[in-house]
Amino acid sequence: MAEEHTIQVELASERKPKPNEDGLGFGRHFTDHMFIMDYTEGKGWHDPRIVPYQPLSLDPSCMIFHYGQSVFEGLKAYRTEDDRILLFRPTQNFQRLNRSNDRMCIPAVDEDLALEALKQLVAVDKEWVPSAEGTSLYIRPFIISTEPFLGVAPAHNYKFIIIMSPVGSYYAEGIKPVKILVENKFVRAVAGGTGEAKTGGNYASSLKAQEVADEKKYSQVLWLDGVEKKYIEEVGSMNVFFKINGEIVTPALNGSILDGITRKSTIEMLKHWGMKVTERRVSMEEIYEASQSGQLEESFGTGTAAVISPIGEFLWEDRKIVVNNGEIGSTAKKLYDTITGIQRGAEPDPFNWVVEVEEQSVPVK
Amino acid sequence: MAEEHTIQVELASERKPKPNEDGLGFGRHFTDHMFIMDYTEGKGWHDPRIVPYQPLSLDPSCMIFHYGQSVFEGLKAYRTEDDRILLFRPTQNFQRLNRSNDRMCIPAVDEDLALEALKQLVAVDKEWVPSAEGTSLYIRPFIISTEPFLGVAPAHNYKFIIIMSPVGSYYAEGIKPVKILVENKFVRAVAGGTGEAKTGGNYASSLKAQEVADEKKYSQVLWLDGVEKKYIEEVGSMNVFFKINGEIVTPALNGSILDGITRKSTIEMLKHWGMKVTERRVSMEEIYEASQSGQLEESFGTGTAAVISPIGEFLWEDRKIVVNNGEIGSTAKKLYDTITGIQRGAEPDPFNWVVEVEEQSVPVK
Repeated sequence: MAEEHTIQVELASERKPKPNEDGLGFGRHFTDHMFIMDYTEGKGWHDPRIVPYQPLSLDPSCMIFHYGQSVFEGLKAYRTEDDRILLFRPTQNFQRLNRSNDRMCIPAVDEDLALEALKQLVAVDKEWVPSAEGTSLYIRPFIISTEPFLGVAPAHNYKFIIIMSPVGSYYAEGIKPVKILVENKFVRAVAGGTGEAKTGGNYASSLKAQEVADEKKYSQVLWLDGVEKKYIEEVGSMNVFFKINGEIVTPALNGSILDGITRKSTIEMLKHWGMKVTERRVSMEEIYEASQSGQLEESFGTGTAAVISPIGEFLWEDRKIVVNNGEIGSTAKKLYDTITGIQRGAEPDPFNWVVEVEEQSVPVK
Repeated sequence: MAEEHTIQVELASERKPKPNEDGLGFGRHFTDHMFIMDYTEGKGWHDPRIVPYQPLSLDPSCMIFHYGQSVFEGLKAYRTEDDRILLFRPTQNFQRLNRSNDRMCIPAVDEDLALEALKQLVAVDKEWVPSAEGTSLYIRPFIISTEPFLGVAPAHNYKFIIIMSPVGSYYAEGIKPVKILVENKFVRAVAGGTGEAKTGGNYASSLKAQEVADEKKYSQVLWLDGVEKKYIEEVGSMNVFFKINGEIVTPALNGSILDGITRKSTIEMLKHWGMKVTERRVSMEEIYEASQSGQLEESFGTGTAAVISPIGEFLWEDRKIVVNNGEIGSTAKKLYDTITGIQRGAEPDPFNWVVEVEEQSVPVK
C-alpha cells in the first residue's frame, strides 16, 4: 500500500460504556471509533484515518445539505461461539459502493483500502461486537459531498466515513411474518433514475408512503414499477421473493431495483440446494392469482438488516393476500437458519462468504 | 408573536471582508450571519436565532448524511437605485417550502415567523446586498434531518437554517441564449415521486445527465417525462417556455415538475400583457415540428438563479433545433427587463410582488 494510504490511528482516550445487549435496538448506539478519508479534486482520496467517534464540523453551505449527493452501504460483523469476528461478503459492499458512486458522480474509492480500513476499525472496536442471539455490529460506510458551494454540480470535495452500531434484531417482532402494503400512489424509483444506487434520495422519497403504511398498521410498503404500477420492484428496505408452485421467483434487476447482497446470497444458496430460482418480471396480478389458486406458497424479503423476513400478508388495493396462513414458510426458515448460521460461523460456508477480522489487523499503538 | 418565537440575535464580533462585486460568481461567498431554528418532536420548532455564520457540528449518524430527508428554497434580495432592499415574493417560497415539507415528512414551519426571520437576517447583513448590475443577495433557506439514528423513518429532530450569498449572474455567459441537450436516458422525476418538492435527491439524481451535457458542450439538460420519455418536464434548474405561432406554451404542473415562482410570475405577467398562455402537456415531437414549420418563435427558461434564460438550441437525439437563429427573442427580453426591473424597484410592480426590508427590522443590539 502506498505511503499516502497508510491508515493513521488515533485511539480514544476514554471508552464509552457499552449498552445492554438485550435492548440494543437498531442504529441508536455507536462505537468508540470511526474511519474517515477525505477527497480533494486533483489530490484524490487522502488521509485515511481511524479517529475517536466525533461530530463532523461542516459549513452550512456544504453540498450534502442542499443537493443530496451521497451514497452509503450497510453490512454486519458477527461474533462466533468461539469468539472470532466475521464479516459477511464485505467486498460485495465496496463493489456496490463504487457502482453507486458512478451513478451519483462521486469519485470511486479503492476497494482494497476500504476493506482494510473496515477490518482495522472493527478490530479496534472489537469489544463492541455483541454476542447475544440476533445481535451484530452494524457497519455503515457512507460518502458525503462536503464542498461549501451552492450550485448544482458534482462536488470537488467528499468525505468517506465508516461508523458502527451494535444492533439487535431489525424488526421489533423478530422473525414473525410481516404485513406489507402494496403502494399504488407513490413511486420509489423508475428506470433512468437512481433506484439501483444506495443514495439518500431514494430513502427520503419513500418516507411518505411508509407513513401511510404505518397508519394502516402495515410494516412496510411494496413498491411497484413507476411506469405502469403493475410490476413488483422491492419492499421498503428489502428485496422480495415468492415461492409459487415450488419455484422461487424474484423481480429481475432492471436498473430501478437495489442489487441486494442478501438477495444475491439467497439466490446462490437456493440454487446450491437444487431449487429452481427465476429472476424475471413479476406482476402483482400474478401474485394475486397464484394466491387465489393456492399456488402461492411463501413470500419473504431479504436484506442486510433483517437477513430473511417472512411476509404473511399483502394488502393490494382492497384485496388482502394472506400467505401461508400468515406463518413462516419452510424455505424462508431454512434460508434464515443457514445464512445467519454462516454469518455466525455456526454453519459450513460453501461459498467462502465470510471474512474473518484477524487479531493482527489491530494496529500497533 | 409568542414568547418562544422571539428571534434572538447574536452579532458577529468581526465582519468578513466583502468580495469584489465584479467577481462574485454564484454561491461561493457567505455573509456574516445565519438564521437557525431547531425542531424537537413534542416541542415543535423552537429557539429561532440569528447567529454568526458558523460550521454545523453534527453527529456522523445524523439522518441527513444517510437518508436525504431535506428540503430547500432559493430567493434573492436586491438593492434598488435609491438604496432600499427588496425581496421578490418571499411568501411564495415559504409556502412552497411547506409543500415540500409535506412530501418529505418534515414538520411545517410557521411561514410568518420564517419571513420575519428572513427580513431580520437580511437587515442584519444588509451591507452584503450588492448593487452592481446583475448582482443580488441569494438567500438559501433549508431544512435538514438531524436525529442521530440509522433507520429509514422520518426524523424526530431537524434544523431550519437560512444562509445568504452575494451573487453575480448565474450563467457565466450572462443573458446570451443557452444550448440545451434533451435527455433520453436518465430521468429526473416521475409522477408519484418527489419531482414537485425542492429536495436534495432530485438534484443529486440530475448530476449524471448534466455530466453528459457538459461533455457535449451543452449548458443544461431538458428532462422528459419518466414514463414515455415524450413529454417535456423542465430544464436542469429552470421551468421551460415556448412561443409557438404567437402563443406561449409551458408544461402544466403534473406532480413531477417544480412549481417555480419565476414560472408563476412569468405566466401572470404575460397574461397581464394580454398574451395567450397555455399550461398543458407539450411533447418534444411537437416542438420539433413547430421548429420545422417555422412556428417555433422563442424558447426560454425561468428560475430564481437566472430569472429568464433564453434558449438558442436544443439537441434531441440527432436533431438540432435552433430557436430564433440562436438569438434572444423579444418576449424573453421584455420579460427579463420587466421582472428584473420590478425586482430592483426600477419598474412599476402591478402585482405587489416585492417586499421591502425595512430599516426598523434591524433588531436592537
